[in-house]
Amino acid sequence: MPIDTGDTAWMLIASSLVLLMIPALGLFEAGLLRRKNTVSIFMQIFFGLAILSVMWFTFGFSLSFGPDTGMGLTGNMDWTFLNNVPYDSGLHYAPTIPGVLFAKFQMMFAVITPLLLTGAIAERMKFSAYVIFIVAWSGLIYYPLVHWIWGGGWLGQMGVVDFAGGIVIHTSAGMGALAAALVLGRRLNYGPSIMIPHSIPIAVLGSSLLWLGWFGFNAGSALASGSLAGNTIINTHIASSISALIWVGLSWMRTGKPSVIAAINGAIAGLAGITPASGYISVEHAFVLGIAIGIGSYLAVLFFKEHLKIDDALDVSSVHGVAGIIGSLGIGVFASTLVNPNGPNGLLFGHPQQLLIQAIGVGVAGAMGFFGTFAIMKVIDKLIGVRVSAKVEEAGLDIEEHAERAYSDEDEFGKM
Amino acid sequence: MPIDTGDTAWMLIASSLVLLMIPALGLFEAGLLRRKNTVSIFMQIFFGLAILSVMWFTFGFSLSFGPDTGMGLTGNMDWTFLNNVPYDSGLHYAPTIPGVLFAKFQMMFAVITPLLLTGAIAERMKFSAYVIFIVAWSGLIYYPLVHWIWGGGWLGQMGVVDFAGGIVIHTSAGMGALAAALVLGRRLNYGPSIMIPHSIPIAVLGSSLLWLGWFGFNAGSALASGSLAGNTIINTHIASSISALIWVGLSWMRTGKPSVIAAINGAIAGLAGITPASGYISVEHAFVLGIAIGIGSYLAVLFFKEHLKIDDALDVSSVHGVAGIIGSLGIGVFASTLVNPNGPNGLLFGHPQQLLIQAIGVGVAGAMGFFGTFAIMKVIDKLIGVRVSAKVEEAGLDIEEHAERAYSDEDEFGKM
Amino acid sequence: MPIDTGDTAWMLIASSLVLLMIPALGLFEAGLLRRKNTVSIFMQIFFGLAILSVMWFTFGFSLSFGPDTGMGLTGNMDWTFLNNVPYDSGLHYAPTIPGVLFAKFQMMFAVITPLLLTGAIAERMKFSAYVIFIVAWSGLIYYPLVHWIWGGGWLGQMGVVDFAGGIVIHTSAGMGALAAALVLGRRLNYGPSIMIPHSIPIAVLGSSLLWLGWFGFNAGSALASGSLAGNTIINTHIASSISALIWVGLSWMRTGKPSVIAAINGAIAGLAGITPASGYISVEHAFVLGIAIGIGSYLAVLFFKEHLKIDDALDVSSVHGVAGIIGSLGIGVFASTLVNPNGPNGLLFGHPQQLLIQAIGVGVAGAMGFFGTFAIMKVIDKLIGVRVSAKVEEAGLDIEEHAERAYSDEDEFGKM
Repeated sequence: MPIDTGDTAWMLIASSLVLLMIPALGLFEAGLLRRKNTVSIFMQIFFGLAILSVMWFTFGFSLSFGPDTGMGLTGNMDWTFLNNVPYDSGLHYAPTIPGVLFAKFQMMFAVITPLLLTGAIAERMKFSAYVIFIVAWSGLIYYPLVHWIWGGGWLGQMGVVDFAGGIVIHTSAGMGALAAALVLGRRLNYGPSIMIPHSIPIAVLGSSLLWLGWFGFNAGSALASGSLAGNTIINTHIASSISALIWVGLSWMRTGKPSVIAAINGAIAGLAGITPASGYISVEHAFVLGIAIGIGSYLAVLFFKEHLKIDDALDVSSVHGVAGIIGSLGIGVFASTLVNPNGPNGLLFGHPQQLLIQAIGVGVAGAMGFFGTFAIMKVIDKLIGVRVSAKVEEAGLDIEEHAERAYSDEDEFGKM
Repeated sequence: MPIDTGDTAWMLIASSLVLLMIPALGLFEAGLLRRKNTVSIFMQIFFGLAILSVMWFTFGFSLSFGPDTGMGLTGNMDWTFLNNVPYDSGLHYAPTIPGVLFAKFQMMFAVITPLLLTGAIAERMKFSAYVIFIVAWSGLIYYPLVHWIWGGGWLGQMGVVDFAGGIVIHTSAGMGALAAALVLGRRLNYGPSIMIPHSIPIAVLGSSLLWLGWFGFNAGSALASGSLAGNTIINTHIASSISALIWVGLSWMRTGKPSVIAAINGAIAGLAGITPASGYISVEHAFVLGIAIGIGSYLAVLFFKEHLKIDDALDVSSVHGVAGIIGSLGIGVFASTLVNPNGPNGLLFGHPQQLLIQAIGVGVAGAMGFFGTFAIMKVIDKLIGVRVSAKVEEAGLDIEEHAERAYSDEDEFGKM
Repeated sequence: MPIDTGDTAWMLIASSLVLLMIPALGLFEAGLLRRKNTVSIFMQIFFGLAILSVMWFTFGFSLSFGPDTGMGLTGNMDWTFLNNVPYDSGLHYAPTIPGVLFAKFQMMFAVITPLLLTGAIAERMKFSAYVIFIVAWSGLIYYPLVHWIWGGGWLGQMGVVDFAGGIVIHTSAGMGALAAALVLGRRLNYGPSIMIPHSIPIAVLGSSLLWLGWFGFNAGSALASGSLAGNTIINTHIASSISALIWVGLSWMRTGKPSVIAAINGAIAGLAGITPASGYISVEHAFVLGIAIGIGSYLAVLFFKEHLKIDDALDVSSVHGVAGIIGSLGIGVFASTLVNPNGPNGLLFGHPQQLLIQAIGVGVAGAMGFFGTFAIMKVIDKLIGVRVSAKVEEAGLDIEEHAERAYSDEDEFGKM
C-alpha cells in the first residue's frame, strides 16, 4: 500500500504526543514528591528518554518487532540500527505510514514503560543502579512482552489482544512497581508527612499533559487516521473523565474535602485503564468500563498503601497496574467486531472465551512484571546496591546524587 | 461522503489542542491570582473538565446538536450517550470525519465555555455552589445557544454566523462574568494589593498554551483540513499578535513600563476576539480587526474594573466578552464569500444587513449570558449560598475548601 | 497541484508545534537564569513573538520569499501584508498546502531565530534597546539570509542546502550570540555563583517542549506529510538522544555527578545540530552525526565560556552555533539522494564538493551573524545604550524595567 498523507500526519503528531507524555510523567511525579528529590525525578526521566531511545534504535526495535526467530519468543536482529526498516514504504504492522515512523511511535512506548516505575522507586534509589535497572528491565521484560503480544509472538497467536498497552505496558509496569517497592523497602519516616506534594501546579500540569498525550498514545495505536482513531479518542476521554469524577467522589466522602490530587490520579487511572480496550469497544461501554476502573483503582490504593503498607510511592501498582488489568479484562467482556473488525468479540458479543484468553495475557505479563522486576532488583542490589544511604535520603537525592537543587535564589542562597 | 484521513488527522489533533486549553486556562488564572487560591482554581478547572465532559456525553450533545424538536429551540434526545452518533461515517455537520470525533471536538468547547467564568468568580466562591453553577449554566445557557446558532436553531436560520464561538462562547461567558461578579460582590480588601500575580511563569505558560490551543479551537472549527483551516490559522495568529502589541503599547504609555501581564492579556483578547470571524475574513482584515479588538478590550478593562469597580477578577468580561463582541460584529463588516463561500458577505462586500443580523445574535447571547447567569447565581445563593465566609476567604480557599496547599516543603512545613 | 488534506493537516500542526517552541525557549532560559530576571526573559520572548509576527506579515515574508528582485539578494514587495499569497492554492515552495499556511510556518521561524539571541544577552540588556535590536536583526540579517538560501537567492543557486535552518538560523544566531555578548560585556560578578538556575522544573519543562516542538520544526520543513517527514522525525529524535547521553557522560566524568542541566543542554544541542541535515541523511548517519554534535558542542562551551570567558549567558554560540555548523557541514558528508531525491549527495556518496559548498554557506551565515550583530549592537549602543545600569542589573531587570516580579506572595510581600 502506498504511504497515505493523512495517516502519516496523524502518526507524526501521535508519536509527538507520546513523546510529550515522558516529561509530563516527570512533572506529575516531581510535583507530587518532595522538593529535595525533584532533580532526581527529572534526571531519571530525561536520561531514561535518551538512553532507552538509543537502545530501541540499536536493537530493541529489532528484538521486539523484527522478524520472528521461529519460536514466537523474540524477533531477530535484521532490524538493528533500523536497518531494513523502510522510510518510503510501510511495514506490515502499519502499511500506510513510513516504516521508520512506526519504529518512532513504538520507541516512545519503549521509553515510557520502564519510566513508569520511577513512580514506585522514587526518593530512595541510586541513580547508577537506576540506569542499570531500566536497561535490564527493557531488555528482559519489555522487549519480550512486546514481541509476544504485538510482534507476532505466542500470546498474540493465542488470541490475546491489547490495543495500546494495558497488558504489555500497564500490567507489567504496575506489577513491577510492587516488586521494586518491596525490594527497596519503605522510605524513611514513611507516613502521611512525607507524602505532601511539593508543588501541585507542577503535578496538575504534568497530569494535564499526560491526558493530552494519551490521545496520541491510544488513538495513535490505530496506526492510521480515520474511524478507529476517532472512536478511540472519545473512549479515552470519557473513561478518564468518569474515573476522575469517581475518585473525587470517593475521596470527598472519605475525607470531607474534594481533592485535586484525587482528581488527577483518577484521571490517570482512567486513561491507563481504558488503554487496552480503547480500540475494541463502543463509547457506551468505555463509560461503563471507566466506572469499574475508577472504583477498582481507588480501592487498590487503599489496599496496597493503607492495608499492606507497601511504599509504591505514587501508586503505580494501582493507578497503572490494577487499572490496566481491569481494562485488559474488559476487552473480554465488551469487545465487539462491530467496532473493530480486526479485534475480537467479548462475552457480551457471544465469545466468553476471550475473557479467559485476556486473563492469560494479563497473568503472563503480571508474572513477568512482578517476578522479573524482583529478580532484576535483587541482582543489582547484590552487585552495587539499589538504595542510597540514610544520610543521602535525608538530605535529598538532588544535592547528593546530582549536586543540583530544583529551586535556588541568589539572594537566599542556602536557605531554600 | 467517506471519511477523509487528512481531515480526520487534523480534527484528532485540533480536538486535542482544545483539550489543552482547559488546563492552560487554569494555569493562566492560577498564576495571576494569589497563591492561597491556586488549588481552588485547578480543582474548578479539572473537576469541571470531568463533569462537563460526562454531561455532554450523556445528554448535552444531543440537546445541542441533535435533531431539532421542531421549533428551533433545542435538539431532541436521540443522541444521548452518543447513541446513533456514527464512528465510521460523518454527521452532516462534518461529513468527512467520524461523527464521534465531531462530538469530541464540540465536547471540548462545551467544557471550556462555562470554565471561562472561573476567572470572574475566583477566590471567593464555594466549591459546592460552583459545581451546581457550571452544571446549570451548561444546561440552561450554553446548550440552548449552541443549538440556536450552530445546531440548526432559530438564530442560525436567521443568518447569524459564528465561526468558532465569539457569540456562543465569548459573548455569553463574558457577559455572564459580569453578572456573576455582581452577585458575588468584590473580594475582601479589593484593590491593587490583592491583584499581584503569585507566579508570572505559570501565567505566561498558561497563556502560551492557550495561544497554541487556539489554533485548534479556531482552525479546527473548519471541521476539515485545507484552505479554510489554513486561512483561519494565520488570521488567528495575526490578530493575537497585533492585539498583544496594542496592550503593551497602551499600558507602557499609561504606566511607563512594558508589562508582561499586559502582553499576555492582550494576546488572549486578540485570540478571543478573532474567534467568530476567523473563518470568514481575509488576513488583512483580521489584522485590522485585531487592532480594534486590542483597543476595545483594553479600554473595557479600564471601564469595568477602574470605573465601575466590578470585581471580575481576571477581566473575563473584557478580554473575552468585549473582544468577542467586537469580533462577532466584525463579521458583519469584513466577511466575504471570496474567503469562505459558505459564509456571508459583510458591509464591505455589499451586504450591510449582516451587521444587524450579527448584532441580534450578540444581543441575544449577551442577554442570555448576563441575565441567565444572574438568575442562576441568585437561585444558588438562596439555596446554599455562593460565597465562602470571610474567614475562609482570608485563609485561602485551598486549605479551607480542599485541605491542600499549592506549594509545600517538608523542611518548612507551615511556613509557606 | 491541489491542496492535500494530509499535507495540510501536518503543516497546520507543525506550524503550531513551532509556535510552542517560542514560549518553550522562554521557559528554558528563565529557568536557567536568576529569579530576578524572569519577567525580563518572558517579556523579551512574548513581545518578540508579537512584533516579529507582525513584521513578517507586513513585509518580512515578501522580502524573504517574495519574487526575486533579479539579483538573488532579496525578494520584492509583491507579498506585503500577504497580498497575492493564496489561501486556496499553494506557492511553488509547497504546492500542496495553502500559501498562507506556508507563510505561517515560516513566520514561526522568523520569530524564533532572533529570539535565540536572548540567551546570550540575558540579564543585562535594556528592553527598549532589545526591541530595536530584534527588529534590525530580522531585517538586516535574517530576511536576507532566508532569501539567499531558501528564497531562490544566490547561495541556494550555488547549491547550498539547509533543510530546516542550521545555517540560516543556528549558525547566524549562534555567531551573533558571540558578538552580542562581546558588545554587552560580562554580567556583574561573572562567575559560577550567578549561574545557578533559579528553577530546574521550569528549565526542564522548557527543554521538553522544545524537543516536542522541534519535531514540527524539522519534520515540518518537509512541507508535506509522508516519507520525508517520517525520516526527518526519527533523525531528529535519535540525534537529540545520543547528544544528551554524551553531554551527561562528559559532564559526569568531569564533575563526578550526572547533571540534569547537562542532559537538557545536550538534547538541545543535538536538536539544533541535526536540523540542517535531518531531511537529507539516513537515520544511521543521523546517529553518527549526533555523536559529533554532542562532543563538539560540549567542547565549545568549555572553549567559549571557560577559556575565552565570553559571557554568552546560556551558551547559544555552542548549543546552537557550533552544533548547527557541525550539522550543516555534515550534509556535505552524509547527504544522499537515496534518502531525499531533491537533496544533494555528500562526500560518502561521491560528491565531496558538497562539503565545500556547505562550508561557503556556513561561512557567509557565520560572518553575517557575527559582524552584522556586532554592528547593530554598536549602533544601538551609540544611540541609546544597550546595557542597563549596574544598579538596575543588581536589583534585577524585572522590577526595574518591568515593575513586575516573577513570584509574589500576599503574606510575604517584599520578602521574595
